[in-house]
Amino acid sequence: MTYDQIELPDVSALRVGIIGGTGPQGRGLAYRFARAGLRVVLGSRSTERGAQAAEDLNALPGIQQPAEGGDNAFACQADVVVIAVPWEGHAATVAELAPHLTGGKIVVDCVNPLGFDKQGPFSLPVAEGSAAEQAATLLPEARVCAAFHHVSAALLTDPEIEKIDLDVLVLGDDRDAALQVQAIAGKVDGMRGVFAGRLRNAGQVEALTANLIAINKRYKVHAGVRVTDL
Amino acid sequence: MTYDQIELPDVSALRVGIIGGTGPQGRGLAYRFARAGLRVVLGSRSTERGAQAAEDLNALPGIQQPAEGGDNAFACQADVVVIAVPWEGHAATVAELAPHLTGGKIVVDCVNPLGFDKQGPFSLPVAEGSAAEQAATLLPEARVCAAFHHVSAALLTDPEIEKIDLDVLVLGDDRDAALQVQAIAGKVDGMRGVFAGRLRNAGQVEALTANLIAINKRYKVHAGVRVTDL
Repeated sequence: MTYDQIELPDVSALRVGIIGGTGPQGRGLAYRFARAGLRVVLGSRSTERGAQAAEDLNALPGIQQPAEGGDNAFACQADVVVIAVPWEGHAATVAELAPHLTGGKIVVDCVNPLGFDKQGPFSLPVAEGSAAEQAATLLPEARVCAAFHHVSAALLTDPEIEKIDLDVLVLGDDRDAALQVQAIAGKVDGMRGVFAGRLRNAGQVEALTANLIAINKRYKVHAGVRVTDL
Repeated sequence: MTYDQIELPDVSALRVGIIGGTGPQGRGLAYRFARAGLRVVLGSRSTERGAQAAEDLNALPGIQQPAEGGDNAFACQADVVVIAVPWEGHAATVAELAPHLTGGKIVVDCVNPLGFDKQGPFSLPVAEGSAAEQAATLLPEARVCAAFHHVSAALLTDPEIEKIDLDVLVLGDDRDAALQVQAIAGKVDGMRGVFAGRLRNAGQVEALTANLIAINKRYKVHAGVRVTDL
């Protein structure tokens, strides 16, 4: 059973909500999803900023489906909800939205718990093991996956860039949820969604972002990863 | 300064010692280094098994430089020493060899602290942060790097495979040592040695091996990583 023989579900009718849709990673993912024809709902702490972010997004070239915007609770109504907030606000935001993320809703955590000092980036310890496991603890009625950690906001938001040349490592304990997240990644031109293990192995995938930042700094690039032999 | 503009040192005259040279990863790396024309010294707990491993290696096709073998202390006489022992014996082996690994010797740790249960692989906590940082603590007079975590022993040891298609993430706090390790990786056909940060960011690179094993299991492959945009 090789990669291309594993059938991914049809996710073209799903609505994807973005919590933290006004931040660079959230806006970048939203842009790529909207270019891929997915229906995107941008969430923000403020309804007005969420609506404004959707308006800004819809003015960018290549949008196949106009995005909607509102507050984070509004974005939680989507079929799949991506958490793209800064690590500092992660636990509080997720806990606050927990009442909206029930019924087996697919939640995709793409938050990287990183610190920075004069020697560069480093991974922060997380009591639950990872941001994704923290979300899973706070959202017992959701199906939490981890994905989209290594995408460069600079590449995602650049309209001139047609293809996002990397693999998205998707982690999760619910096979159906993971397959849907893989399929969403696969809608973006150039991306593949690759299943990369259970949620207990999410911590190192989040932390690897520190290494990619170190690579970016050394080589002046926007590094991502591809899985070889796949 | 892009990847190919960073000049790597000439390492063709260096001798590379392998601690744990009779294990699958150690033998595999030794084979690839010897095929690339590097002088390899295989170390083992037993002088006889180390010598036998070298004899076996030299019988494989494509060897450019015959390997030597002996005990681990003998392998420590090489210019660069690769630690490729099982995690279980890591601390004890490194501590025992510390008197031989002084004078700024380059030591390359490629050990992955992993556990396995019925749900598959997972990363083990390490008090020092990573196997490589444990080695650095035990070897204050060596220049410890971390590298070669994601190479598949099955691919390395298969004489039919000409190219090892992956990037070796090299971590270290000593720039010159890291460059030499990158250059050694770059001698192997298909491999690139990519600087991926300071030693404090080695833990997630070691732990990522659990994800690659999960990928191998799901897709029936021998997964490695390539850094994109480089």
